[in-house]
Amino acid sequence: MLLRDAEGRARLGGVLLEAIARRGDVPTPFYAYDLDAMVDEAVDLARGFAGRDHLVCYAVKANSAGRLVRRLARAGVGADVVSAGELEVCLGAGVPPERIVWSGVAKTETELDRALAAGILSVHAESVEELARLDARARAVGKRAAVSLRINPGVEADTHANIATGHDEAKFGVPLADVPHALAEVERSSSLSLVGLSAHVGSQMVRVDEYVRAAEVTAGLARELGSRGRALSLLDLGGGMGVDYGEGCPVRPRAFVEAAARAVAAIVDVPRLLCEPGRAIVAAHGVLVTRVVQTKRWSGRDTAGWVFLDAGMNDLARPAMYGARHRVEPLAPSASPLACARVGGPVCESSDDFGTYELPWPPPDLMMIRDAGAYGFTMASQYNGRALPAEVFVEGGEVTGVSRGPDAAEWARARLAT
Amino acid sequence: MLLRDAEGRARLGGVLLEAIARRGDVPTPFYAYDLDAMVDEAVDLARGFAGRDHLVCYAVKANSAGRLVRRLARAGVGADVVSAGELEVCLGAGVPPERIVWSGVAKTETELDRALAAGILSVHAESVEELARLDARARAVGKRAAVSLRINPGVEADTHANIATGHDEAKFGVPLADVPHALAEVERSSSLSLVGLSAHVGSQMVRVDEYVRAAEVTAGLARELGSRGRALSLLDLGGGMGVDYGEGCPVRPRAFVEAAARAVAAIVDVPRLLCEPGRAIVAAHGVLVTRVVQTKRWSGRDTAGWVFLDAGMNDLARPAMYGARHRVEPLAPSASPLACARVGGPVCESSDDFGTYELPWPPPDLMMIRDAGAYGFTMASQYNGRALPAEVFVEGGEVTGVSRGPDAAEWARARLAT
Repeated sequence: MLLRDAEGRARLGGVLLEAIARRGDVPTPFYAYDLDAMVDEAVDLARGFAGRDHLVCYAVKANSAGRLVRRLARAGVGADVVSAGELEVCLGAGVPPERIVWSGVAKTETELDRALAAGILSVHAESVEELARLDARARAVGKRAAVSLRINPGVEADTHANIATGHDEAKFGVPLADVPHALAEVERSSSLSLVGLSAHVGSQMVRVDEYVRAAEVTAGLARELGSRGRALSLLDLGGGMGVDYGEGCPVRPRAFVEAAARAVAAIVDVPRLLCEPGRAIVAAHGVLVTRVVQTKRWSGRDTAGWVFLDAGMNDLARPAMYGARHRVEPLAPSASPLACARVGGPVCESSDDFGTYELPWPPPDLMMIRDAGAYGFTMASQYNGRALPAEVFVEGGEVTGVSRGPDAAEWARARLAT
Repeated sequence: MLLRDAEGRARLGGVLLEAIARRGDVPTPFYAYDLDAMVDEAVDLARGFAGRDHLVCYAVKANSAGRLVRRLARAGVGADVVSAGELEVCLGAGVPPERIVWSGVAKTETELDRALAAGILSVHAESVEELARLDARARAVGKRAAVSLRINPGVEADTHANIATGHDEAKFGVPLADVPHALAEVERSSSLSLVGLSAHVGSQMVRVDEYVRAAEVTAGLARELGSRGRALSLLDLGGGMGVDYGEGCPVRPRAFVEAAARAVAAIVDVPRLLCEPGRAIVAAHGVLVTRVVQTKRWSGRDTAGWVFLDAGMNDLARPAMYGARHRVEPLAPSASPLACARVGGPVCESSDDFGTYELPWPPPDLMMIRDAGAYGFTMASQYNGRALPAEVFVEGGEVTGVSRGPDAAEWARARLAT
């Protein structure tokens, strides 16, 4: 949990963030994660299933740090992966294959083979064509493939255009009109076992309505299949539960699952319910700690201008990529008056801009960019020849691990080796 | 040069791209670069200076491959760097420090020290505050700093909002109103040598007007300084010359330099003119070669739908980041009828979408994404647990180098090591 103590100093999982930054062995910018709070989020979310048999499959793409996935695995949390790389992280971190589902529109042959060899709970097929490819691979390697149809329930999520995924002709999922073709493909195959259905309507949803409607559509289809002798063993409600990036989002992630599970129960009896939260588990419990490199006053104004950080769009891409706003705050309280500050990164692009905030002026040297636990490090690059940010893990009130990626010198050696 | 031969097969620098993809030792997706053509672009651009003393400083952030920078260095091209990492690549690739300028709004103390130690041609200062910081570092290490003022000429470039950089209160450059403060800062210092002025108004400019106007403003200021006994040794016209991404851009990069150099000559006599092209030198001579993983027909339509590639937004971020359009074309000709195809990548995001193209249906297995020589590999990430794309270098009509980054398994090992 990110809190300010009685002196107003930011603490993550009880640890003073400023103390980490001043240790000397952790360069800024660095991500800091409260793993206890992330596990608590997953446990809390699971309570939404209200005693029904369930599996929370953490969407690893949000934050793939091995130490986090190990902690979640120990808490009984499964995984939703989208690549062979993510599958290896999960297996290596102790997630049992029977708790892993694999989503994604373009799994390669090698990846399908890997899924079959590992014997994961379900390959979530996103198209009729993928079913045919999976069938071919299953026959080639002599295995039976446990598959779920990821359907596209035709529900429009009220979210950023870039991350809405549930509309028709969408990239993801089998449209309802094509479900009969998909079922025929399964029927034809002696290597595919249809174990379930899944649905996913979008990311960063701030209301439960669409989530529930998608679950109802999926449950209705499951009931229809059941009545035709095709009982399913699982129904995956998907992910996409929104988090509060500072604009206020009163809906707890658990409420999505609670409402959808109740809606499903009224329609069909499926042995097991799944969901695929990513952001909802990790976003709030990670921060990006950064140093102010310099300011640049606006012409003719003494107390307003740019504050340039040592963290940039290469470290945290969401503001540049989606226009996302992540609150920027000082780590320690300051006696300086507040001023209008535009916060930018060091990358030579206008889009490397974290937005305008009221900040003490002159700004203190250490700041944090909040809610950076999801889609932060996983999207980081070395653009502009910069180091990858470090990662700091907080557990049980102390720092239990520090991970440093390649620095600028290592980057340069690699580029010179071409 | 990217051309189609008599059989309609795509060749880059004379090399059949399909042959590289079928070699077996180069995984898709991979970038392929025609280094000869890139060098030719730099040489052609330099002709725009029409015999005046000049230096083309290649903006390394566009494509930092060591093999490319070495080739450019051998052709006498200098460098514009924005980080210590990029400086190391240039020095390691044989660019003499006296041909290197350093831009960027937030150079760290370590970076300023590195610039001073290397003795580069010019630190381009982007703010009054940076001059003070550079002065302090120069005094601390007992060196004199060669500095140029990057001015913000107040010229609005007609380009994407994210990459326009020349307006007032902009992130980059010293606004004209603050130039007197900046000069006073230099005056006060015994460690700063003002060697020049630079200007940069935006990226991907499609008309020369703004480029010329910025040069005129800069030249006017240089004349004023000269009349006050502050003769400068260089004037940097900046970069930002647009390239043709398929919408047609009749202006050759050389034309920007030609027009601006002529305009400057009419105003002031400065010993040496610089420019900072990045994209203009490399964009057109790089392609991203990719395999089709699968298709997904649209409901009720036999010959239209998604074509999913093994290249995604992690390999080439520009479409997701800026809404940029990069033509997608088959490597080899096809007898199949053309259909409306929406081309997507494998990443689990709706923004991983390269746009809609007329493509043979069913699509051939190998495709290329064009004009990917700039801001391609340099912006790549391992998002979704994916490998970094490989890079293939073409010189003298053959492949002279292949560089492979960390694959998915290496990525997984690194994540598990946290």
